[in-house]
Amino acid sequence: MLLIKAGGGKDINWEGVCRDIAEIWTSEPVILVHGACAQRDELAARLSVPIRKVISPSGITSVYTDQEAIEVFLMAYAGLVNKQVVARLQRHGVNAVGLCGVDGGLWRAKAKKEILVLDGEKTKLLKSNLSGRVEKVNTELLRLLLDHSYLPAVCAPALSDENEIVNTDNDTASAVMAGALGIKKMVFLFEAPGLLWDADDEGSLIRRIDRLKIENALPFARGRMKKKILGVKRAIEAGVETVYFGDGRSVHPVKNALAGKGTVIY
Amino acid sequence: MLLIKAGGGKDINWEGVCRDIAEIWTSEPVILVHGACAQRDELAARLSVPIRKVISPSGITSVYTDQEAIEVFLMAYAGLVNKQVVARLQRHGVNAVGLCGVDGGLWRAKAKKEILVLDGEKTKLLKSNLSGRVEKVNTELLRLLLDHSYLPAVCAPALSDENEIVNTDNDTASAVMAGALGIKKMVFLFEAPGLLWDADDEGSLIRRIDRLKIENALPFARGRMKKKILGVKRAIEAGVETVYFGDGRSVHPVKNALAGKGTVIY
Repeated sequence: MLLIKAGGGKDINWEGVCRDIAEIWTSEPVILVHGACAQRDELAARLSVPIRKVISPSGITSVYTDQEAIEVFLMAYAGLVNKQVVARLQRHGVNAVGLCGVDGGLWRAKAKKEILVLDGEKTKLLKSNLSGRVEKVNTELLRLLLDHSYLPAVCAPALSDENEIVNTDNDTASAVMAGALGIKKMVFLFEAPGLLWDADDEGSLIRRIDRLKIENALPFARGRMKKKILGVKRAIEAGVETVYFGDGRSVHPVKNALAGKGTVIY
Repeated sequence: MLLIKAGGGKDINWEGVCRDIAEIWTSEPVILVHGACAQRDELAARLSVPIRKVISPSGITSVYTDQEAIEVFLMAYAGLVNKQVVARLQRHGVNAVGLCGVDGGLWRAKAKKEILVLDGEKTKLLKSNLSGRVEKVNTELLRLLLDHSYLPAVCAPALSDENEIVNTDNDTASAVMAGALGIKKMVFLFEAPGLLWDADDEGSLIRRIDRLKIENALPFARGRMKKKILGVKRAIEAGVETVYFGDGRSVHPVKNALAGKGTVIY
């Protein structure tokens, strides 16, 4: 079984991703997790809802989520992008079903109502945050769909233990999902050729990384890439054997990634 | 099995609807179809996307749907309201899964790319319309979920035969779904006590209507109520035996409707 996590950047080649999935799907079960940050940011701007990006004391970027922000999140992720991806997969003959982490308690998260963030040199505490970390996955629902030839197309948000809708990190959630399902192969697609030694130089691609040394990649990963590395670390701890980083902008995003044209964490 | 169609008006008592469903769910399978027109209209206004309401030559109101309109539709229906209803059902202990008609080809619609609309005294043809009429239902997916104790919470849009996302009428789709599943009992909830003889007088409630005479209700039904009457007519033709119209604003919307406090079409 293959778990594909496609980022939500505006240049992701969705047509290529879905075409590749349709080909793989004929011989292997696939779960797709997708982002939608470009559409989320665009919608938030049009609605004048601020996206409050914050940085944790350990340097990890995330979004402070209030009620208004979670509504924008639902609309962009679970509404717009999820259903557009499902329809596109249907056009390629894949009977996809779109779910967010709320559906059937698919992604159960421990709420993080209070978060510590950097404010210049200081740290401060933000309260009433609607986000959480996925800890449990409803694998029964995923298996039920896969066993009946439905491809689950999954996205955030998640459902907290108190059944509140909470923002969550897709990369971490994908890793937890992979672990829960005993998946051995994951593909991460984003708007870069793979993991770069120098984020400003697309030629500085790192072709292979020993999965036991993945943490060494943290110092030169920037911004959201730090989260992906942490996601990969979690996935490997959960039993994933090979992670393929690939360029979501290419003609064959998934096939190229699996062919080792990006970064292979082996 | 009970099919509940709850309208998308802003005064629908969702807490009451979900509480009633949780009680019924312990002894009977339930499918919920919900609208989201209030949230769709609000979102469209905030995004300055016009909602082009049109009237057919036979006097039926609908919405002309272009690409921008279908995106607003997806966000409000499949994103915002669907997942908020699912989370609310989860808080009441019901393991709901939210789907729109696109997921798994749940609602297959025949596209109506061109529609005739009234323009004053004349009729004119509007092209490039992204809407359709639901003709087929993926009952296998609904049964799969119900058989595994998941309550399907369903909404528009639908998927056309060419796998395009198309707006569709929820009332008609609910009727087709009821027929396909062999459902005998349906509840329609909206922002009125039931079918009114005089739409301006909430005291003019009609308590009972013989289902074979439902068409006689068309002349005094106004606006969206005409569609509900047509939906009921279709449902009855498809084998539904009793339809309960009830007040979605009441403390116990579903239970009151089933107790005959609105209009019973028997």
